[in-house]
Amino acid sequence: MTRTKPDRGRFLSIEGVDGAGKSTQLPRIERWLQSVGTRTLATREPGGTPLGESLRTMLLDPRFTGMSPMAELLAVFAARAEHLAKVIAPAIEDGVWVLCERFTDATFAYQGGGRDVDRTTIAALQDIVQSDIRPDLVLVLDLPPAVGLARAERRRHGAVSVQGTAAGSGAADRFEREDAAFFRRVREIYLERARENPERYAVIDASNDGATVTEHLIRAIEERLP
Amino acid sequence: MTRTKPDRGRFLSIEGVDGAGKSTQLPRIERWLQSVGTRTLATREPGGTPLGESLRTMLLDPRFTGMSPMAELLAVFAARAEHLAKVIAPAIEDGVWVLCERFTDATFAYQGGGRDVDRTTIAALQDIVQSDIRPDLVLVLDLPPAVGLARAERRRHGAVSVQGTAAGSGAADRFEREDAAFFRRVREIYLERARENPERYAVIDASNDGATVTEHLIRAIEERLP
Repeated sequence: MTRTKPDRGRFLSIEGVDGAGKSTQLPRIERWLQSVGTRTLATREPGGTPLGESLRTMLLDPRFTGMSPMAELLAVFAARAEHLAKVIAPAIEDGVWVLCERFTDATFAYQGGGRDVDRTTIAALQDIVQSDIRPDLVLVLDLPPAVGLARAERRRHGAVSVQGTAAGSGAADRFEREDAAFFRRVREIYLERARENPERYAVIDASNDGATVTEHLIRAIEERLP
Repeated sequence: MTRTKPDRGRFLSIEGVDGAGKSTQLPRIERWLQSVGTRTLATREPGGTPLGESLRTMLLDPRFTGMSPMAELLAVFAARAEHLAKVIAPAIEDGVWVLCERFTDATFAYQGGGRDVDRTTIAALQDIVQSDIRPDLVLVLDLPPAVGLARAERRRHGAVSVQGTAAGSGAADRFEREDAAFFRRVREIYLERARENPERYAVIDASNDGATVTEHLIRAIEERLP
């Protein structure tokens, strides 16, 4: 008996500044995909593997404030290499649709835009680590950074959290401590990358109410990945 | 008042398989350099900074056995980027001689030779992370791997340790668990790199007694970096 090789799955990433609603929207997209008969896997970066989660803890740790931008960049890609090898690539190969909260666009936005690391360096690492793996669709939840930061702040203090896990953790992580200019640069890079590759990106206005955002996300997926 | 800019320091690395005597010999070289009026800084890789030491712990942790070779490689270079930015480059700039236990030759030997990662990938990362910084002299303590492994084993069980810190720690780390073929490949790469760049490498027979090895190391430094 031979097992028929499944069709290749798809790879979607969901991006945006803190508070844009990524971790609220991702499970909703996943439930919708499952309801139309798609096998899914939800994951996140940095993280997604035991090693990746250890690296994530390190990357967010305020104890490492002042970490050199190059070290940060390489630690992000170390987590990504493990994530690709152990989780993402095998799942896609197996016909699963992978939904990833943040991927390499976040590296261009945060390390490239936020920390001003040379983008040709990021692109070189992308080629080394990912070969030709790129998301089939990048969903950018767009929001003025001030709005996102205020939402993230409320969440940290336990006021509102759909996910629950992050609620009330209190202290700001190493990225949340950055200033408004940092997050403006992050947003600019997301929008710039979406403009440069309109066929692979969908920019969704994340200032709408959650249900409307979900609707727009689902419509974008239906249009781009029929 | 202006402060005269000091002459640039030098950068020496000391390499070799576990048990070759790196951590025994490095303080001896350092004391000798200080006795002839040189300012020195002894450090190690992976490590040398708080972030680097956290990455080292992760890299050696048997819990992460099976880590993808690319993730391992990038974590090594992440630690190195931090080490260069915060410790090595400023010290050299300030006229200090930096003595580093393991550097990028170890990456070529362990990740390239041991794990069979493509060496052009390692060279590309070397260029990205180090720009043109390379050790002025690489001291390779050469030893048949079986001898080194037996020494490392004795040290783990607390029989002998000059450094003390590693003595009696008991469990083998993630690299010490590799097989003899792994360490043969590691040794081959060290010797190959030394053959290819004789002006920047000195291969020292580490099977001699410790005092003889120290003498040979000092003679190599005197000859190469007068």
